[in-house]
This record gives sequence, structure tokens and C-alpha cells, in this order.
Amino acid sequence: MSLLCDTLAAIQPQDADARANARARLNQLTMPHWALGRLMDMAIDLAGQTGTITPDLKKKAIVVMAGDHGVVAEGVSKYPQDVTWQMVANIVSQGAGINALAAQSGTDVVVVDMGVIKGLDEMARSGAILSMPVAKGTGNIAKGPAMSREQAVQSIENGIQIARQLISEKGYAVLGVGEMGIGNTTPSSAMIAALTGKPVALVTGTGTGLNDAELHHKIAVIEQALKVNCVDSADGLDVLAKLGGFEIGGIAGVILGAASLRKPVIIDGLITTAGALIAQTLCPTSAEFIFAAHQSVECGHIAALERLGKEPLLDLNLRLGEGTGAALAMNLIDASVAVLTKVKTFEEAMVSGKK
Amino acid sequence: MSLLCDTLAAIQPQDADARANARARLNQLTMPHWALGRLMDMAIDLAGQTGTITPDLKKKAIVVMAGDHGVVAEGVSKYPQDVTWQMVANIVSQGAGINALAAQSGTDVVVVDMGVIKGLDEMARSGAILSMPVAKGTGNIAKGPAMSREQAVQSIENGIQIARQLISEKGYAVLGVGEMGIGNTTPSSAMIAALTGKPVALVTGTGTGLNDAELHHKIAVIEQALKVNCVDSADGLDVLAKLGGFEIGGIAGVILGAASLRKPVIIDGLITTAGALIAQTLCPTSAEFIFAAHQSVECGHIAALERLGKEPLLDLNLRLGEGTGAALAMNLIDASVAVLTKVKTFEEAMVSGKK
Repeated sequence: MSLLCDTLAAIQPQDADARANARARLNQLTMPHWALGRLMDMAIDLAGQTGTITPDLKKKAIVVMAGDHGVVAEGVSKYPQDVTWQMVANIVSQGAGINALAAQSGTDVVVVDMGVIKGLDEMARSGAILSMPVAKGTGNIAKGPAMSREQAVQSIENGIQIARQLISEKGYAVLGVGEMGIGNTTPSSAMIAALTGKPVALVTGTGTGLNDAELHHKIAVIEQALKVNCVDSADGLDVLAKLGGFEIGGIAGVILGAASLRKPVIIDGLITTAGALIAQTLCPTSAEFIFAAHQSVECGHIAALERLGKEPLLDLNLRLGEGTGAALAMNLIDASVAVLTKVKTFEEAMVSGKK
Repeated sequence: MSLLCDTLAAIQPQDADARANARARLNQLTMPHWALGRLMDMAIDLAGQTGTITPDLKKKAIVVMAGDHGVVAEGVSKYPQDVTWQMVANIVSQGAGINALAAQSGTDVVVVDMGVIKGLDEMARSGAILSMPVAKGTGNIAKGPAMSREQAVQSIENGIQIARQLISEKGYAVLGVGEMGIGNTTPSSAMIAALTGKPVALVTGTGTGLNDAELHHKIAVIEQALKVNCVDSADGLDVLAKLGGFEIGGIAGVILGAASLRKPVIIDGLITTAGALIAQTLCPTSAEFIFAAHQSVECGHIAALERLGKEPLLDLNLRLGEGTGAALAMNLIDASVAVLTKVKTFEEAMVSGKK
């Protein structure tokens, strides 16, 4: 657990001087005051996170964490569990939504096996994916905990290691998080209910496309999971262990790892936001390094983002996951850096200011 | 006027077959149904506009129409009129917001002098801008019409010519529209009030940053403009001639020209939406080729987009103009094409469908 403890201890707030310097420059750009709105707000955060007003954030990656979930035995998803494996293969062969959208924004895709049941050994051997499985799928949360506390720590530490490798060894300057795991809106909604105190029905959505009866069943399964597992909602490790998933722990780890190395990290939809809430519970300051890419159609996402204290950048009726919203939002990171570093000031451009 | 008449006659609705074919493919992609939401809605429109489900929209340009406004004599802007010219120079020297954001999305910037008072001859001679001025600034709409009906036609036809040149000669596949013209939120709000029937106070904003007293004065100026000029709101040319601007007519022309050549066109904020309303009034079908990039902070933009029948793609508190929102939205056009053309179907990827 020393990697987790060391990482939590290393997370420091945004750099106040860099924020002030960025604000001073943005106030002088050749445009009416703050006329590029949220791009300018983002630029202040990017400066505060990286400690410079000329951040170089061109090298970007989305980490797609994959894992399976015991709770699918309860019939909470429209798709068979094998689809987790099949979609990992689809991403590796460049056929998924995340491939199309990551390529559009010049973002690499890194797939990590955090605990898929069906073997991914061949893909791991060929280097197509990273292999850091905690176990072959979680336990059924409707009947007991998803994993042990040790496994929860392990899943987070695996994510921290991934972030360290990508940032420190491979030179990535900004990370996004995505996921693939049939059934994983169920543990996510369970975690969000536990962490926000909201009624399960308010934070549980139709996932991959449940009908009304199936949605009611999913809500009942989550209510049972909360009853069976006596969760201490102030203890992020307990919430993750009892209700979570290996890929969700991995996402929390990537966020904590990126924050400890002062790099921005973009979260995607419901599941990655559940991961971000675990990171926030373990270290509230980690949220200073997070951007929320978009507002998902999944209804629990509103409560989760509210709890995280983040306003989403995009609202395009997305509900795919995989990191697709985060990939789209990478364009806004690039745009925000361009505003901060490329637009001239009134003085530089010799343009008259206000009368 | 034959160019305008010919262009209006050439505008045909979206291709229903291409829309149906796009929908059929999108329904089979390896993801839950319509899980990429508005990107998929956009893909259907792009197919309908271009007539193909494999559109190549890589070559993109933002047309920044520049013009001056007689109404600035009424003190409706925080900036001196010279700033129109200065900001054109700033755009030409790559220092403005639009340069930074257009470069981010791989979009070229084409600046057009539609009627700037201070001479832009040198920039025109060097090829840095296109020179199609209708006259050196409009009349003061608080005292009479902005321009003659002939000038209104001319401004639109200039825009059509620009669109034809960019699309037919230079091979651009998608256009965005932007503008530069100190004072131009005043004619835009006047036109939007005339075309929507909404009270002036409801569609008039603070522009480049007016205080409360200045905003009340701006509202009074617009009310006077509407009183002095008896506008026939069913006649787009009359609205443009009496309340408009040369760059606003040019924007309407670019939209009509692009629609006649079956290319998508992205509008930006308040002023370009006023131009789009003129295009719509002259030819309602032209709106089928428009995407609304974003919801501007300028309050009149809500009513204008409602009248146009468009839901904005982004909402980032932008109020700069220049085409900056359109430049950002070009990323979403690219993303939408990527979803349509690069994501595999369940069959292609051999992924199991719903149970």
C-alpha cells in the first residue's frame, strides 16, 4: 500500500502563481474581457495544474480500463459478458467508437486488462494491450463484496503505475480515462448512491438500453447490493471494495497518479466519474487536476459530477463510455492551450483597447 | 440579381436516401443504440447534405466577413471603430482568437472586406484578404436605412461568390462563418427583433462589454432604428437593407451559396445567426445545410436560434465572434464523419449483439 500512500502524499494543489500569471495574460488578449469563456477558465486550470503558462499538452492518451463484473449474473445488462472481451478486441483492431474519436483529436488509446474473465493473453503478448489484471472479474455485489480491500488497493495502484509509465516514461502530458466492462453502470450507480446519499432510483439509468421493467430490476439489484454490503461512505477503499470494479479502481489510480505528477486528467461518463469520486474521497485535492468532459445521458452522472464539483464541458447526449467523451474534450484542451499561448495581447498586436 | 435568384432556385432539400443509408449504418455500429447521440444526428445531416455516407470533409474554411457600421456614431460599442481595421490586421498576422482556434481544428481562415471604412488595400493586394466591399461602412440605422436594397443584394451576392470560389474552385468541403465589425451586435439584435417579433430588450446584450446604462442606451437606439425604418419582416432583403450590415449580408450569401452547392455551413454567434435568419427568410430550405456551433452569451442568440430551428452544439460562455465557436465546432464535424465512416458494425467486428 506504500505506492498508494506515497501517491496521495505527493498530490499538491494547483500552482497559484501560474494561475495568476495565466489570468493576467488572458485579461490582455485582443478580445472583449473573457470573451472565450470556459476556454479561458480551462486555461487557468491548465496553468495551475502544470505550473506554467506555456504548457505543451500535445501528447495525449486515453486509458481504457477493462474489467468484468460478477453482478451481471443478476441480468443487469442487455449484452452478454463476452462482449467485454469482444469490445477489447474491437478497440485493438481500431473498430470502436473510441478509436474514431481519439484519432480525430490526435489522442493515443491505451487499453488495460484490469480483470476481464476471458483470456486476453494473446493481445497482451503482442503488446496490443497492457495486462494488469487484479482477478478474473469481481464478485456479485448483490450477494457480497466486489473484491477484498487488498484487491481494491491493488486496482488503484495498478492505475497509478499506468499513469506513471505513460507520463514519466512515455512523455504523455494529458490523460483521459475510459472503460469497457459489461454491467459496469450497475456498480457505478451503486457507488454513486453510497457516496452522494441519493436514492438509488435517482442515480440509476438504462445503461446499454434497458426497458422500464429491466431498469426497475437493476434498481432493486443495486438496493440489495447496498443492503448486503454495509458500506462506510467516508472510506473510499471500502466503497470500491464492496461495490466497485477493478477497472473503476484503475481509473481512480490513473487520476491519482496524474494528479501526483501535476498532469490534467479528463474523465468521461458515469463509470469514470465513479472512479473520480473514489480518488476524491481518498484525496480531495486530486479533483483539482480533473476536467469533466461531458454530461452523460445516464441520470446518475448529474449527481456524481455535482459531488465532484465539476461542470461538464460538452452535452451531446453521449452514453457510450470507452472514453469517447474524453477523446472529444481533448480538442477543448488543445483549444484552451492555443488561446493561452497563441492569441496576441492588445499591446503585442497594437490594437486599441476599450474607450 | 440573377446570381441571387439562381442560387435560391438551386437550393434543394437534404438527400433522403443518403439520410436513410446513414441511419441504417449507424444503427449497426458496435455500441448501444445511438450511444453517440448528437454526433450521430449530425452524421445523418452530413450525409443528407452531401448526398453520401462517406463524406470527405477534411478541407475546411472559416469565412470572416468584415464591415463597419454607421450606428457606432450613437455610442453603442466600447471600442473605437478603428478596431475593425486593427482586428482584421491582427487576424492577418495570426494574432486573434480565430487564428488560434481555426488552427486547432485544421481549418483555414479567409478574411473578406465587405465594407470596412479604413482602407485595406494593401492587405488585399498582398492576397492576405479578399476585397469585395459594398461601400465604406453602412448608414446609421438610428436615422435611416443601413443600405439600399441594391446594396443588400450586392452584399449577399458577394457572399455567394465567395462560397462558390471556395467550394467549386478551391475544393473546400465545409465552411464556417465569422465576422469582425465594431458595433455589429446592434444591427444584429435589431434584425433579430424584427424577424422574431420579440421585444428589443429581450434580444439585446452587452456586446463587447457594456454596463447597465450603456445597455439601456443600446436598447433605445435599436428601438429607434425599428421606429425610423418601417421594416417588412417577411422580406429578408428589406430587413437586411434597413437594419443590417454588409458583412451580415455576406454571411447570408455564404450560407445560400454553400447550401446551393450542397455543402454544410457552420454558424457562430449572434451576428452570423442574424445572417442565417436572412438566408432562411429568403429560402427556408437553406437552413437544412446549417449547423449551429454554440450558444452565445449574447441573450438575443437564444431567440435567433429558436427561430432558425437549430439547437447549438456547444455552450462554453463564448461571446467573441470572429467565427471562433464555428472553428471549435469543426472538431465535431470531423468527429461525426469519423463515427459514420470509421466505426465498425457488429457484423464487421464480430461482436455479439443484444440478448
